[in-house]
Amino acid sequence: MLKLYGFAVSNYYNMVKLALLEKDLPFEEVPFYAGQSPEALAISPRGKVPVLGTPQGFVNETAVILPYIDDTQPGVKLLPADPFQRARVLALAKEIELYIELPARASFGEAFFGMVLPEAIKEKTRAELLLGFAALKRHGAFAPYVAGSEFSMADIYFLYSVDVACEVGQILFGIDLLADMPEAKALLERLHQWPNVQRIAADKDAAMPAFLAMIAAKQ
Amino acid sequence: MLKLYGFAVSNYYNMVKLALLEKDLPFEEVPFYAGQSPEALAISPRGKVPVLGTPQGFVNETAVILPYIDDTQPGVKLLPADPFQRARVLALAKEIELYIELPARASFGEAFFGMVLPEAIKEKTRAELLLGFAALKRHGAFAPYVAGSEFSMADIYFLYSVDVACEVGQILFGIDLLADMPEAKALLERLHQWPNVQRIAADKDAAMPAFLAMIAAKQ
Repeated sequence: MLKLYGFAVSNYYNMVKLALLEKDLPFEEVPFYAGQSPEALAISPRGKVPVLGTPQGFVNETAVILPYIDDTQPGVKLLPADPFQRARVLALAKEIELYIELPARASFGEAFFGMVLPEAIKEKTRAELLLGFAALKRHGAFAPYVAGSEFSMADIYFLYSVDVACEVGQILFGIDLLADMPEAKALLERLHQWPNVQRIAADKDAAMPAFLAMIAAKQ
Repeated sequence: MLKLYGFAVSNYYNMVKLALLEKDLPFEEVPFYAGQSPEALAISPRGKVPVLGTPQGFVNETAVILPYIDDTQPGVKLLPADPFQRARVLALAKEIELYIELPARASFGEAFFGMVLPEAIKEKTRAELLLGFAALKRHGAFAPYVAGSEFSMADIYFLYSVDVACEVGQILFGIDLLADMPEAKALLERLHQWPNVQRIAADKDAAMPAFLAMIAAKQ
């Protein structure tokens, strides 16, 4: 059986969890906080979550795990069979990761965890988020899903990265990054109604107090 | 015929160019500096290079273009057929991108283009590069190639990202990031002898003066 290593507060963990749930695959959740211990690094080379445990060994990096699951497991497809359409979905997911998730993540510390970050870092987050959301508006279809009429890996990235980036935009800069993207807002609302998405959100809420206490203890 | 949009100074452009050359595919190089003009954004949603022009349309993001080429074109394979081994190569490439290339890139301005960056940004680059190289040492095989006995997409990322990250480490911090990775150093030296790699380097050298003049004019 597949094993999902990580913790329910991680948005990347929840991307893989949603893929597994939507495909209706059996899997075991293994609590794993990663970090730089030798034990953690034996599972995850850079000490990150999530990691997928497979009969052949560990697969790391969400952007790799999701296509791996799609290519090897049954269930609803996350990627089109046509190589060009597959590339389009992967590019949309990649753009969300590089140009929305990563700039937002650079300022998570101040947005969510009570840290104070240098202005230079926050200003970089703000400028890059504006360009990243403009790119998403330009390239996304939102008809109704990110890449078109079918749910895909791009929607998984969208759900778990855009949502949190919007929080960063609101908390740190007082801007609504989806203000001129009503179809994207509607898609977020639609996805939040999905039973598996609600289950993942409930698991996240349940895990949050312990996670915040752990973060606070480290500071 | 495939068209490669970008410019010879970009290390991501050169990753795709090496893949096309190693596969011995016919392709046309289209000078494209990207940016935020409407014309550029019609080709590249976030205004980045490279972009691959295909009969079906544009494919963007190097991490997407390389598997797309491998899945649709003849020639030497960049990814193993076995899904687990494929995932391992993709994870290694991804780790190089996220944990070596991106932290290094954040400080390119000061390392290469005469800018002065905030200390906070450079310190983040330094700390992340040390962790990124430790991950590469841990996960890479270097036997003699990054993922094992076969050349792969991971070597393309390695060649064009690790090299430039090492320059950043030397110039900004005075550290040799490959000091305790002799096999990785040997692989870099080996790859630099490849005729297609030398051709790409010559094209880059020829394009550099005009590129630096363009950068200087923008400042």
